[in-house]
Formats: sequence, C-alpha cells, structure tokens
Amino acid sequence: MTEKLSESAPEIRPGEASIALPSHTDAGLYFIGRIRTPWTERRQAPKNAREARERGDICTVEVDPRYEKALAGVETCSHLILLYWMDRARRDLVVQAPAHYKEGRGTFALRSPVRPNPIAMSVVKLVKAEGTKLQVVGVDCLDGTPLLDIKPYFASADAIPDATVGWHQKERAADA
Amino acid sequence: MTEKLSESAPEIRPGEASIALPSHTDAGLYFIGRIRTPWTERRQAPKNAREARERGDICTVEVDPRYEKALAGVETCSHLILLYWMDRARRDLVVQAPAHYKEGRGTFALRSPVRPNPIAMSVVKLVKAEGTKLQVVGVDCLDGTPLLDIKPYFASADAIPDATVGWHQKERAADA
Repeated sequence: MTEKLSESAPEIRPGEASIALPSHTDAGLYFIGRIRTPWTERRQAPKNAREARERGDICTVEVDPRYEKALAGVETCSHLILLYWMDRARRDLVVQAPAHYKEGRGTFALRSPVRPNPIAMSVVKLVKAEGTKLQVVGVDCLDGTPLLDIKPYFASADAIPDATVGWHQKERAADA
Repeated sequence: MTEKLSESAPEIRPGEASIALPSHTDAGLYFIGRIRTPWTERRQAPKNAREARERGDICTVEVDPRYEKALAGVETCSHLILLYWMDRARRDLVVQAPAHYKEGRGTFALRSPVRPNPIAMSVVKLVKAEGTKLQVVGVDCLDGTPLLDIKPYFASADAIPDATVGWHQKERAADA
C-alpha cells in the first residue's frame, strides 16, 4: 500500500511544485526509431547537449525501415534537429530545483526532460548516413530512447548566436 | 461515397510517396495552450520561420493557466524554442514534392508540417511575457495551433551558424 502511494506521488524536492495533469491526452505519437548511445544510466550520460558535443561520442540513430524513403536528402545536411521522447521522465512538475541550481525554476525556463510533454530537442552533427542508420554527435540521452522526428537544421532560421538566457547568466556570474 | 474515398486517400503529387502508418500510437501528448496568429489560411501565413521573422508580426502564445508556474524565468530569455502540433497535416508521406522545389525530397530532409509526428519547431524572439501570455516574433502557423512545449534557447547548444543543407544550397544555386 505504501509502495503504491509513493508510485502515484513520487518525491518532490524542496522548492519544487507539481500539478494535476489533464485526464486525457489530445494527440498520439509514433515512435519512428531508437537512439543508440553508450549510456544506460543517467549519471554516465553527458549533462546536456553542449557537453555531449564537447565529449564527441558518436551515437547511432536507428530509423524504423518503414520510414527509409523519408531519409532521402538527409545525407546532404551538416547538422540535424532530433526530437525524441524522454520516456522515463515524470510530466507533472511545473517548478523544478535541479541540484546544481540555487533556486527553483519554471519548467518552461529549463531544458530538463521533466515537462508536460517530455520531448527533447537536440541539434546534432551528422557524421555518416548509411541506409536507415545515422551516426551523429550531440545527443545526451540514454540508450534506446524513442525517436520522434528528424529535421534539417537551417542556420538562417535556427541559429541565433547572440541569444541569451538571463537567469542562467546570472547564476554563472554568481558562481564565478 | 466519392468524398469518403478522397478523405481516406488524399491526393499525392507526382514524385511523392506514402506509407501505411503503424496501427497504433506509442505515446500521448497534452495540448498545453494555443498559438494566436493573424492567419487563418495557409496562403496568408509566412512560408517559413525565416520569412516570419523578416515580416515581424507579433503573435501571442496563450498557455493554459494550469501551467502558469512553469513560466517562471521564461521572461529572462531573449529567444525561445516552441514546439507545436500541426493538427491539419497528413502523416503518411515519406517523399514530398512541394511546388517550389524541382524534385521530391525525403520528409526528414524537409521542414514541411507533413511528417509521421507533425511537431513543428520554431525559434522565436520573446517580445513580452505577461501572466500566461507570451508575445513572440517568428512563428509561421495558423491561428489556434496547439502548443506542445516551450524551451529556453541556449546559443551554446542550439546555434550552429555555419550549418549547411546541401540539397537546398544546390537548388538555390540552380535558381540563380
């Protein structure tokens, strides 16, 4: 009985807040493949996409053969946007207090996998495309993570080198 | 009867290819808000995110009050990533031949809303945040489009100014 209770109401850290999620979902997703990485536990994986790129581990995106034709032209892209499903993340936290930050932040101001729709977005460098397998650098997820989408990265629309995240700069300045 | 048939098997242009989608979906999405834009028909809207930014129309992201606390800190971001659901798009095309391109391309090499999971990703400039409403520049979608996620844009991870899309450069060179 106690176990059941803790399953339905998992632990919340001080400073965090949860909500009741809607009673039903509004749309459905197909898993279109899997991402193969060397990491089976969170502590082994890069902390974020920047660290993943710096570490440089090559990971493999395995696309379901059903979608093979949809990959035509992908091999001409230097970088891709991957959307994937963080299937182990809870969805009900609206304020989160990650251990390495000093105070709670709103979920939509964070890149944490914990969010109402746990869709991660990573910009990856394409190393090699062969059949339904893509070798990429830049993902930070666990082995077997379900893939949702692959998009070409257009610098003209997607690259904003001077974009800033105020709360993050302030936090880093306080650390220095 | 004819109408029903055309509903279940919509038109495909020469050079396009469709597939049978899986019999069931694997995960569910919550619509967390709506995007309000001046456009009710596709032909009025900007052709893509770059054109939307150039036109500069301010659009409003309306977040469901249920998620209000999740917005704390968003106001400190200069740019945001929006994920939204292209609810009018078919999902079964793997090769597409948009009128303005010379040949068919794989869906994953295009930013078309037509894809197995019709999730659009746009980088937008945040103009103003007030309560559960965000004023932004850079979306190209129709009025009322369901919102899936808001993320902070980190230039360190998300900006790749020298990224290239080979097929697109070739196409533009041929036009010149």
